Amino acid sequence: MSTATASGFDSRAFRNTLSTFTTGVTIITTRSPEGEPIGITANSFNAVSLDPPLVLWSLAKTARSLPAYTSSKHWAVHILAASQQDLSDRFARSGENKFDGVAVETGLGEVPLLSGCTSLLQCETVHCYEGGDHLIFVGRVLDFRRSDNPPLVFQAGKYAVATRKSEQVASSAGEQSAWTEEHLGYLLGRAYFQFYQRVRDSLHQHDLTDTEYFVLTSLMAKDGRSMDELNAIFAYTGYVARPSDFDNLRRRDLIAMQAAPLDGEPAPVTLTQRGRALTLELIAASKAVESAALDAMGQWDALSLRNLLRQFIHATDTGVADPWK
Amino acid sequence: MSTATASGFDSRAFRNTLSTFTTGVTIITTRSPEGEPIGITANSFNAVSLDPPLVLWSLAKTARSLPAYTSSKHWAVHILAASQQDLSDRFARSGENKFDGVAVETGLGEVPLLSGCTSLLQCETVHCYEGGDHLIFVGRVLDFRRSDNPPLVFQAGKYAVATRKSEQVASSAGEQSAWTEEHLGYLLGRAYFQFYQRVRDSLHQHDLTDTEYFVLTSLMAKDGRSMDELNAIFAYTGYVARPSDFDNLRRRDLIAMQAAPLDGEPAPVTLTQRGRALTLELIAASKAVESAALDAMGQWDALSLRNLLRQFIHATDTGVADPWK
Repeated sequence: MSTATASGFDSRAFRNTLSTFTTGVTIITTRSPEGEPIGITANSFNAVSLDPPLVLWSLAKTARSLPAYTSSKHWAVHILAASQQDLSDRFARSGENKFDGVAVETGLGEVPLLSGCTSLLQCETVHCYEGGDHLIFVGRVLDFRRSDNPPLVFQAGKYAVATRKSEQVASSAGEQSAWTEEHLGYLLGRAYFQFYQRVRDSLHQHDLTDTEYFVLTSLMAKDGRSMDELNAIFAYTGYVARPSDFDNLRRRDLIAMQAAPLDGEPAPVTLTQRGRALTLELIAASKAVESAALDAMGQWDALSLRNLLRQFIHATDTGVADPWK
Repeated sequence: MSTATASGFDSRAFRNTLSTFTTGVTIITTRSPEGEPIGITANSFNAVSLDPPLVLWSLAKTARSLPAYTSSKHWAVHILAASQQDLSDRFARSGENKFDGVAVETGLGEVPLLSGCTSLLQCETVHCYEGGDHLIFVGRVLDFRRSDNPPLVFQAGKYAVATRKSEQVASSAGEQSAWTEEHLGYLLGRAYFQFYQRVRDSLHQHDLTDTEYFVLTSLMAKDGRSMDELNAIFAYTGYVARPSDFDNLRRRDLIAMQAAPLDGEPAPVTLTQRGRALTLELIAASKAVESAALDAMGQWDALSLRNLLRQFIHATDTGVADPWK
């Protein structure tokens, strides 16, 4: 709902403009005089001073938890990780029982500390400044810790993750897309084939074809499917497993196929013990490639890559079966 | 360089922890009593109050420009766009002549205004609070405007861009990586094959194989290569073009091959007029798929995806030929 502020501003337009300033997301916790754990989601946090170490954040004067923060000397800032969106939502809602089922440690001044954050700063109030409809809390940092969990980001009213900006992007952003290394088809193909090349090396060692690999890994995800169901699962690849492929796998004792029952139901295909062991070995090879790539590019960017590939897959989906549904 | 703060903190560790809180990047401008335009890059900006409309930022007490900001009532906050990294760097350096060659308008209180930002807020100081080694300026917003330019992001000491977070990432980020839809090999394969499926439809219409497609597009990038050179170009795909593939293309008048000269130099392969026309048609199909995907996911996320795929390709490169070099 858009209303005018005292300055005559359209308050929604003003909020929308402010929200173009990207922020992280924090949960700031304290303990009430009655001993209750208190916590609120805030993105108004920022660093102030290195020496002395000071940080600040703002709290609405109408917040139910205001008395707890003004009476307690101590509070803790949790810079949330990308995986903590649910926690952010929970602590953004007004209401009680925010801590139900949430594991907490006890910090300085009995303040409840949440786990799994990107960073944690334990503070004590040194100033509480007037800030219009908010109070600005300035705190001295008494203790801090940091993890490698990639942080949650908030921009233009939506959760986000940040991607390091590479020089290439900076230099090519202005160019027109051409049939060059910027072409998404090339980039996807190159990334996929480079990944798959090392998996293929394992396949060749075991004298398996790409199609046979797709059959085995699809059975690993869910055993006991029919030939048609299996083909539907990897239809997105364009590969088709023919009866002769299934026969090959059966002759090598990697899969078992029941005879088609009389009622015409399709015969289920199952992995043999040998087939399961071999498939696990192939999957391990694939995960090793993944691990090496993730280590090289860093966990934070890997999270963004997955996120974007999923968006791309959704954007180009033609309705073929999703093997994970 | 790591030094201890007055609190005994390792100052680098403290800075590194603070920097995990993601921020946008602003340039805050004012005019000195002498009439000089003044500007400084700051990421300590944040919103404070909606009604009255207040924002804040912090400035080091040692900053050369401090007297200008304390004496001038007015200043303007420019929330920088992703394309303004150079401007951010320029205004982050101490020194004069920051405005040389920069187009400015004149705002309230004669404050210089920069163009091309994501958002602009014109303010007047209402409070100047003590903040350790910084002063905290709280300003009332007198005017604001907003563009659609995606904003520049700063995280962990590096420039970044934000990518909207999909729900799936939120729900699965905490899970251990398993052989699931989170597996990068699956995501890359699915994205690639979904892209390529529509290109393949065009190939089938023209009775062309994947390998023949790789030959034709490689010739389009640079004509007159030998069979071995061509195979090296798409070696990353695992596909190999055999002499019979080249013969097929020649019989269909899509490529021409000179007879091997007597000195044993490999014979160059060239596209015929017909081959060039068909390849352009196939490339157009591929670019149409790209355009549709980019429109669906948005240009900005598409830029991030390219950026990350390039990082992934670099991280998993095994030294096969780069067709673009």
